[in-house]
Order: sequence, then structure tokens, then C-alpha cells
Amino acid sequence: MIKIAIIGGGNVATHLANAFSKTNYVSLVQVCARNIEQIEHLKNVTSITNSIELLKKADVYVIAVSDDAIGSVSNKINHQNSLIVHTSGSVEMQSIQTKGRKGVFYLLQSFSKNKKVNFDEIPFCLEAENESDLQLLETLAKSIGKKIYHINSEQRKQLHVAAVFVNNFTNHMYKIGADICNKHQVPFEVLQPLIKETAQKITKLSPEEAQTGPAKRNDQKTIQNHLALLNAEQQEIYKLITKSIQQNGKKL
Amino acid sequence: MIKIAIIGGGNVATHLANAFSKTNYVSLVQVCARNIEQIEHLKNVTSITNSIELLKKADVYVIAVSDDAIGSVSNKINHQNSLIVHTSGSVEMQSIQTKGRKGVFYLLQSFSKNKKVNFDEIPFCLEAENESDLQLLETLAKSIGKKIYHINSEQRKQLHVAAVFVNNFTNHMYKIGADICNKHQVPFEVLQPLIKETAQKITKLSPEEAQTGPAKRNDQKTIQNHLALLNAEQQEIYKLITKSIQQNGKKL
Repeated sequence: MIKIAIIGGGNVATHLANAFSKTNYVSLVQVCARNIEQIEHLKNVTSITNSIELLKKADVYVIAVSDDAIGSVSNKINHQNSLIVHTSGSVEMQSIQTKGRKGVFYLLQSFSKNKKVNFDEIPFCLEAENESDLQLLETLAKSIGKKIYHINSEQRKQLHVAAVFVNNFTNHMYKIGADICNKHQVPFEVLQPLIKETAQKITKLSPEEAQTGPAKRNDQKTIQNHLALLNAEQQEIYKLITKSIQQNGKKL
Repeated sequence: MIKIAIIGGGNVATHLANAFSKTNYVSLVQVCARNIEQIEHLKNVTSITNSIELLKKADVYVIAVSDDAIGSVSNKINHQNSLIVHTSGSVEMQSIQTKGRKGVFYLLQSFSKNKKVNFDEIPFCLEAENESDLQLLETLAKSIGKKIYHINSEQRKQLHVAAVFVNNFTNHMYKIGADICNKHQVPFEVLQPLIKETAQKITKLSPEEAQTGPAKRNDQKTIQNHLALLNAEQQEIYKLITKSIQQNGKKL
């Protein structure tokens, strides 16, 4: 039985605590949050505390706090023989301040407080300093999930910026689509099947193979017609992405 | 029983022909394509021809050809009492050359030749010059689909450019994500659950409400870290979309 403790009171900490509390192979010995009210709802499933210094002994401490606090929080854990991991996509493993063992337990997904999480679908990106700790993290991950990857700190940084493109920037493309619809009294739901299809397509084809449209075809007539319909800010984005799609075509 | 004929040999024409050939309320009397080999496979379900001039009498002619050919094709149909519609997202209804009745039967989805189409999921965007023709198109649409919208030519033009943002430009965001992954030996599949989640989220929240990430939070430290990881072309896109997300924040 692996004993773990979770430090943090936010979405990631809460979802992890709920998931680990239901497994057979992992014992969630404690959850710790500075503001103990955030984790009050967990007191039926495990011990809760607001004092890092008084944390119970565990095999693995999972720090799920804001990026800036990872260093100072890890520094306060008094169990130097245990593995200490953080859950951040953008912080290096070496930011963990301990003389002992370090690792990363990063879940690549955006979590919402009230939305149920299907851990089977979420990629677990694991990193450790040696093979036995990596195995330990893998055992933890497999107790609640299915998609396990070994990702080092450099790869994780790259994944984090790639995630901004496919998540935040994609969402902004949806936003512009919604703005255009709203302005012309067209319900945004008309675009939703296309959005779904676009996201599904790249599970079968690479995004490069999946590309279609006026930029790819270099259909100047349609491109000019489209630009005439857009405001200045939308035009700037339309032109830049069209250029980028076409430059990519030339590189092939 | 409504009699229809379809003109065209491409993806839209083929998928529509297959769908209409299976309905009870619509009779597909003929399919016509210049290159008859394209529609050879339909000869078991309906009459086929390569001559527009010899088209059989129908209540509705559905022109599913390239945008540039809609005018000339419509001009050759010798049945002036019938309703003639095209299926294009970017061509005005008035481009149909007939002294008779005109309309639009636009399916907002990207069709692939070999991929099965679920018409229940596809928005049918209908336009006609009068209420009775709109009802006629609605009956046609309902015989094979479920999502029916009345969209005029101006709205349809706007939808078409909005679709470029949510489909082609979103796919390019996936492409950049995949490029970053490939460069650093990370499998692109790690990003796919996030892509799926991002697309699903906006069926519950507006894209504006769904936005997260460093641009939205104005997290300059992360933004600068990200820029340092990107090539010049990716940086330009990152900066412009970040600026656009932030400008939008200010407008609220």
C-alpha cells in the first residue's frame, strides 16, 4: 500500500484527493491546505490539516499549489526520505526544494471545480530522478488513470506552450466565430457540429493532412471576400494565420 | 412525394444522393454529373446522366457543384417551374440563373469522400424567396436531418468566414501544437484529450466564459517563458492572439 498526502486546496488537489480516496492500492493519509475551509468537504474521506509542518508520514507528497508557491511549500515538508512531487506543467522538477527525492505528477487537462473528471481520459505526465521513483509514480497514476507518459522537464515546458495553442488559442478562434454569429443574429450552436468534427478529425489524421479551406487552396477570391467582412482585429488574425498555413504548405 | 434531382459528382452531391435515396417522403429521380464515372456507383439507387439539358422533371433541383459553376449550371436547367437551389456557403442565392424560383440548401460541415456522414448532427441552413419554398426545403431537410436553420445570404456569408476561424484556423492551432510535440519527441496524442475537452466545453459555456490561460490571466512571466520556446512564426501568432484575448478582456 502506497501512502500519499496531498498539499493544496484547489481544483487539481481536490480532484486528485477524491480519486485517490477511492483506490485500493493507494492510501490517502492526509490533505493539507493553508485555508482549511477549502478542504473541509474531504474530512469524511481522509485526515485534513492546515499545517505543512505537522503533515503525517507518507511515501509520496503531492504538491498541487500555485506555481510560485511550489518552492516554499516543498521546503517545509519535514519528511526527507519521501518522494516529493509537484503537479505543474510549467515548473521544473528542480524547483522542488528538498535534499531528498523529487518528481513531477502533471495531469494535462484543464480542471473545473464542479465538473466531474474522467481520469481514464487524462494524460499523466510523469518525471522522476531515477527509475524506481518513476515506477512508484506510475503505480500511483495507474491506480486512478490509464494514459501514462514519461515526460522530462524540457518536454513538459514544450507541452505547456503547445497546450496554450490547442486550448486557449483554439478557444479564441471559437470566440471570434461566436462574435461573428452574435453580430449577425445567427445562433452559435450552428457552428458546434463543425467544431466537434474538427476536433475529432485529428484523432485519425495529422493536423497537416486534415487542413482544408481557402488558405490551404490559396483561394484568393474567397480570402478577399472574407477579409471584407471582418473588423480590423479579426482581419489581422485572419491574414497572419492564412500566411502561416500557406508558408507551411510551401515547406512540404 | 417530393421529386428531386441532384447535379454534381463531388462529396456533397454523393452524400446527399445516398441520404435522399433512402427516405420515404422524397423521391430522388436523377443524379447528373459532367463526368458520369463519378456517379456510376449511384446507378443502382437512381437514374444517372451527364446531360443537364436532358434532366428529368423534378420539384427541386439541388446544384452541388463548385462555386464558380453554379451560375452556368443553373442556367442550363430547362424546368422553369421548379425550385432551383445551390449548396454553397459562400455564394449568394441570387447567383442562381433562372427566371423561376431560387433557394439555398447549405450543409455546414466539411465532408470527406470516404467518411460516413451523420446527417442528424449537421446544420441545414435554408434560404428561399418565399415562405412556401422555405417550407418545401424544410420538408426536404427534415427527411434526412434534424438541425434546421433559416439563414439568409448575408448571414450565410458571415457563417462561412466564422467557419474558417473555428475549423481551418483551429486546425492550424492543432498543427502548431503537433509541430512543437514532434520537435521534442512528445506524442501528439498527449494533447488530444485537451483538444476534445476544449471543443466540448463550449457546448456548455460561451467561448468567452470558457477562456483560461496566461493571456486571460495576464501572466507575463509565463507568456515570456513561452515566447522564448517558440520560433519566429509561432511567436508572431502567439503575440497576436494573446493581445486579442487581452483586448477582449478589457472590453468586458
